[in-house]
Amino acid sequence: MRIGVLTGGGDCPGLNAVIRAIVRKGVQEYQHDFVGFRDGWRGPLEGDIQTLDVPAVRGILPRGGTILGSSRTNPFKAEDGVRRIKDNLSKYEVDALVAIGGEDTLGVAAQLVDYGVRTVGVPKTIDNDLSATDYTFGFDTAVNIATEAIDRLHTTAESHRRVLVVEVMGRHAGWIALHAGLAGGANVILVPERRFDLDQVCAWVESRFEINYAPIVVVAEGAVPLEGQMVLKDASLDSFGHVRLSGIGEWLAGEIERRTGKESRTTVLGHIQRGGTPSAFDRWLATRFGLHAIEAVHDGDFGTMVALRGTDIVRVPIGDATAKLKTVNPALYAEAEVFFG
Amino acid sequence: MRIGVLTGGGDCPGLNAVIRAIVRKGVQEYQHDFVGFRDGWRGPLEGDIQTLDVPAVRGILPRGGTILGSSRTNPFKAEDGVRRIKDNLSKYEVDALVAIGGEDTLGVAAQLVDYGVRTVGVPKTIDNDLSATDYTFGFDTAVNIATEAIDRLHTTAESHRRVLVVEVMGRHAGWIALHAGLAGGANVILVPERRFDLDQVCAWVESRFEINYAPIVVVAEGAVPLEGQMVLKDASLDSFGHVRLSGIGEWLAGEIERRTGKESRTTVLGHIQRGGTPSAFDRWLATRFGLHAIEAVHDGDFGTMVALRGTDIVRVPIGDATAKLKTVNPALYAEAEVFFG
Amino acid sequence: MRIGVLTGGGDCPGLNAVIRAIVRKGVQEYQHDFVGFRDGWRGPLEGDIQTLDVPAVRGILPRGGTILGSSRTNPFKAEDGVRRIKDNLSKYEVDALVAIGGEDTLGVAAQLVDYGVRTVGVPKTIDNDLSATDYTFGFDTAVNIATEAIDRLHTTAESHRRVLVVEVMGRHAGWIALHAGLAGGANVILVPERRFDLDQVCAWVESRFEINYAPIVVVAEGAVPLEGQMVLKDASLDSFGHVRLSGIGEWLAGEIERRTGKESRTTVLGHIQRGGTPSAFDRWLATRFGLHAIEAVHDGDFGTMVALRGTDIVRVPIGDATAKLKTVNPALYAEAEVFFG
Amino acid sequence: MRIGVLTGGGDCPGLNAVIRAIVRKGVQEYQHDFVGFRDGWRGPLEGDIQTLDVPAVRGILPRGGTILGSSRTNPFKAEDGVRRIKDNLSKYEVDALVAIGGEDTLGVAAQLVDYGVRTVGVPKTIDNDLSATDYTFGFDTAVNIATEAIDRLHTTAESHRRVLVVEVMGRHAGWIALHAGLAGGANVILVPERRFDLDQVCAWVESRFEINYAPIVVVAEGAVPLEGQMVLKDASLDSFGHVRLSGIGEWLAGEIERRTGKESRTTVLGHIQRGGTPSAFDRWLATRFGLHAIEAVHDGDFGTMVALRGTDIVRVPIGDATAKLKTVNPALYAEAEVFFG
Repeated sequence: MRIGVLTGGGDCPGLNAVIRAIVRKGVQEYQHDFVGFRDGWRGPLEGDIQTLDVPAVRGILPRGGTILGSSRTNPFKAEDGVRRIKDNLSKYEVDALVAIGGEDTLGVAAQLVDYGVRTVGVPKTIDNDLSATDYTFGFDTAVNIATEAIDRLHTTAESHRRVLVVEVMGRHAGWIALHAGLAGGANVILVPERRFDLDQVCAWVESRFEINYAPIVVVAEGAVPLEGQMVLKDASLDSFGHVRLSGIGEWLAGEIERRTGKESRTTVLGHIQRGGTPSAFDRWLATRFGLHAIEAVHDGDFGTMVALRGTDIVRVPIGDATAKLKTVNPALYAEAEVFFG
Repeated sequence: MRIGVLTGGGDCPGLNAVIRAIVRKGVQEYQHDFVGFRDGWRGPLEGDIQTLDVPAVRGILPRGGTILGSSRTNPFKAEDGVRRIKDNLSKYEVDALVAIGGEDTLGVAAQLVDYGVRTVGVPKTIDNDLSATDYTFGFDTAVNIATEAIDRLHTTAESHRRVLVVEVMGRHAGWIALHAGLAGGANVILVPERRFDLDQVCAWVESRFEINYAPIVVVAEGAVPLEGQMVLKDASLDSFGHVRLSGIGEWLAGEIERRTGKESRTTVLGHIQRGGTPSAFDRWLATRFGLHAIEAVHDGDFGTMVALRGTDIVRVPIGDATAKLKTVNPALYAEAEVFFG
Repeated sequence: MRIGVLTGGGDCPGLNAVIRAIVRKGVQEYQHDFVGFRDGWRGPLEGDIQTLDVPAVRGILPRGGTILGSSRTNPFKAEDGVRRIKDNLSKYEVDALVAIGGEDTLGVAAQLVDYGVRTVGVPKTIDNDLSATDYTFGFDTAVNIATEAIDRLHTTAESHRRVLVVEVMGRHAGWIALHAGLAGGANVILVPERRFDLDQVCAWVESRFEINYAPIVVVAEGAVPLEGQMVLKDASLDSFGHVRLSGIGEWLAGEIERRTGKESRTTVLGHIQRGGTPSAFDRWLATRFGLHAIEAVHDGDFGTMVALRGTDIVRVPIGDATAKLKTVNPALYAEAEVFFG
Repeated sequence: MRIGVLTGGGDCPGLNAVIRAIVRKGVQEYQHDFVGFRDGWRGPLEGDIQTLDVPAVRGILPRGGTILGSSRTNPFKAEDGVRRIKDNLSKYEVDALVAIGGEDTLGVAAQLVDYGVRTVGVPKTIDNDLSATDYTFGFDTAVNIATEAIDRLHTTAESHRRVLVVEVMGRHAGWIALHAGLAGGANVILVPERRFDLDQVCAWVESRFEINYAPIVVVAEGAVPLEGQMVLKDASLDSFGHVRLSGIGEWLAGEIERRTGKESRTTVLGHIQRGGTPSAFDRWLATRFGLHAIEAVHDGDFGTMVALRGTDIVRVPIGDATAKLKTVNPALYAEAEVFFG
């Protein structure tokens, strides 16, 4: 059996670990053959392939990024996309696909299954916002990096009596902010799921100074203040005319400084959260996702996707990944609030 | 309400995070009062207490160890132990206890509940061998440390064509060895659950050299070879007459070198696996355990223990913790075997 | 002998290590007595002191920040500042001072020596821009943090073919940018010592893409483009009317994206570079600075400051610290240029 | 000009950084051509070469180990060794060599220069025991790893009132033990340069317990007790008849436990100190060594070796590297003693 593998969407530590596990188990246990498709769905669409055998996956387990490259190419937006993919699969004698990716990549996979493309999915989202699985790989790494950053800020915050704002990833879901904020002992955590009240934020900041400590504010990139607290002028500060993702941290530090009179500084972690070597948990999860994905292929269980439930890897319909965004629920957020201020 | 808190048994990163969460939530949300008992069950047995309020738990979240100290004191082995504990709880007007510990500590807690001591448990085991919960805090930290060690060994193994043996914790359960070995890309993983065959280990080692790589062998401290492969002479090398815990790694490297003729070196991680700052996951888990334990106390739900199921914290009978050792099952071990050799 | 200790200026990992070494050696070897002055020169100016003995310095070696607090108070700008300091030193029976700080703190120290205040200095600058010493503590920590960030960005840069801009500290000197850029394998390094040419930067960026790699640009916060390449509009994007320190990285990413058409993202490390646990080198250097500072006090060698020369700690006139800013010289920068593009 | 490069002796983080810098600068600035010789002097002796161009050194900066392999082959012990090397250099049209290695590798280089082999040296020793240079790359990485290990042990030592012994590298020189011990706040540091007195060690251990702390003992692998304190029986515990390198830590823990009655545990760091990614300092030093080595070749300055003096890279006669072992001098050791006990 010859199996194609592709990785789509944003970067996520653990992608290479998935690829390695698929190939190692496929070759050694089932004598499968592999083809690497380059840059997500662009690979099968344009017939862009690379060698994918045991030597090719040697040493990649601890490496961030993906040896297969990635893109956001959507074959359903390309002329004749489905037919071109099927033609290329035929041309390279590919019997089945493993598609590793997030909502978009798996959304395409789910549709292609309906067109007869035998595909198994592996879920990937740095933001941990897929509802079909307890966790996805990459998330734990991102949370560790953000937590270490918060750890480092504590001493400075205290020595200098400054407000320190850390902007972390999370456009639609605040999981990284919540977990890192809780693990790092942040004094305020702001998530996209709930508009924040600047007055409340400033009150928390000030109560922290009252006990002679300095506050650390963790803000997800997608968090927004209550209506009326942010004016268009603030949101369009960018030099080339649109709101920059990385704007909220800087904006918030400015507002806190203006309102409380306390010096405020910003750290914008940006892409360091999604690059570099995966944490042990993410390597373990990614490796097991890979092992179970190849099992699903071997079983002919197409249209499914691997998922984590407790400590077990299970299979769920691939469409489940895209069914519903998993966001921070109010009860969990409330748990963290006891530490605010 | 006045609540006593104690930590028993071996060290585990995250103990302080549990204590902090208990106190922060107890004080701020329920206006509880706290008493710290020193050194596990020795504290209530001997009436040894320390102040435990919000200032006392400031800054302890990222710190390893336990501000309450620990011991293996078993009040049931002390003369009149139960009565003395009950007297001390009365004396200090303690209404309920939170006992944080492993099998032994929680075993005592379970018995004391029968004697009317109102206790809630928080499970703790660096080895992850309690069956009542998906994970316990400290385990992820240990696995990360062991994985980083393996990462560092890879380059040396390859530059020098040496066999590198890493001995990790795990007397009765091989979870750390399995997870770190899988995450670090070890070529052999040996666990206490399954006696290993030295001949097979040497064959894996040699097959690795055949493809011009050098092998990394991860061995849990409690792993033992097949009967007849280790003689008493090997096991009694210690200078003061009993088998040292840290012996298996050194012994194994010696045997591999002797049998294969390949230079072999050992790393014994020892206590660095259970000290220092907890990983983000462990801080998150420990914090949530603390928050939910105080909820259980608040609800009067004594005799229960908090546990992780998927991403939820649930309550289970405290006796469940000690009911059965959670060991590495053969299926999971088989998953890893595809990477051996 | 009773000795006062103070720490002034910005945060720097290693301050606590200096304080600990001073106290440990002073007490154990010379039976000195210590007084901690709070918040730099504000302490002796206002007579704000804290206990500073062996128990007070226990466990602080690995901690960032300073247990004595810090400020930028300049007693020469306070009414009657010198007299008030001398009065407070008399009042607390302080025979000599150890002042730990940068240009400003040591500048005050140098002047006070002329007024008869017996002072020994310990140089501190996270930016490594004091010419009297090979290195100062804190710098190595900052460089390690920035290097790890660059490491993490490499994989993402490559997987996504994006430009990644990292803004690091360095308002007047580009040492952190140069060292971290060199150690991290950055493709462009921009320092305050040399105005950069945006066209050249974009050319380097594009040449990197030509060989199918993605560029990482390290920019010191104080770097500025050639005249005419940055207009006021760019520099005043801030919501409360003045240029934010953290602006250049974001601005540069915007300009590169606009000019090359390549997606660009920014990481602003900010205060995580100056907080948290010091590197081993910084702890070693800070500890030795402390040990030698107390030797200088013991020898009555006031008006001097400790400094690193090769592997030796020497004493230099305290005024040397402020004589001349140590900036990146053109020859060193040229060494790095071979890796650009 | 065609230049051969080789790496000999033990592993050291930074070897790849040297190789990369040599090739990048040689190719881009001087249009040199390179040949990689495999496994130290075995490469030119047996004519075993590999491609060494800009693509070959891509991405190797942060990687431990050496892409050229290493060995301890000594051509002067091989029949006709010098002639065979000269023949192979002719055969592959190699005009000059850069030899990266320690005492042995550079000793060979120094002799070969006398035979007309045009060689420039780059010093390498994880132990930092070459007197010709302030530091060598790899040492800072090893010290950081050992320091982090000590950090982690502190909390456990305190929670459990145990003695924790850490064995670090250093057969003939105690630099790693001294620097890591000082940076980690160890309570006893034992180095090969000075035989230690077990009674004194036990006294320090006990004095630590008296103030309710637990001691951490750092011991270099080459440290030995006073005559008469270690009997042959202890030194021959090994299963295949000779003293294992890793024995002293285990032996010492046993002796301390036996004499003081305090539980003692050992960590043997072993090869994790010399593998994995180099610290920022080591990458910077290794890169600059490479850049300056190629300058020396370009200048025809054969028979020299690069060395660090303060912050400058200088050239010294290659024989200086092997002239004298740089050991910990008594004054430096005495500086550290103030922290013992």
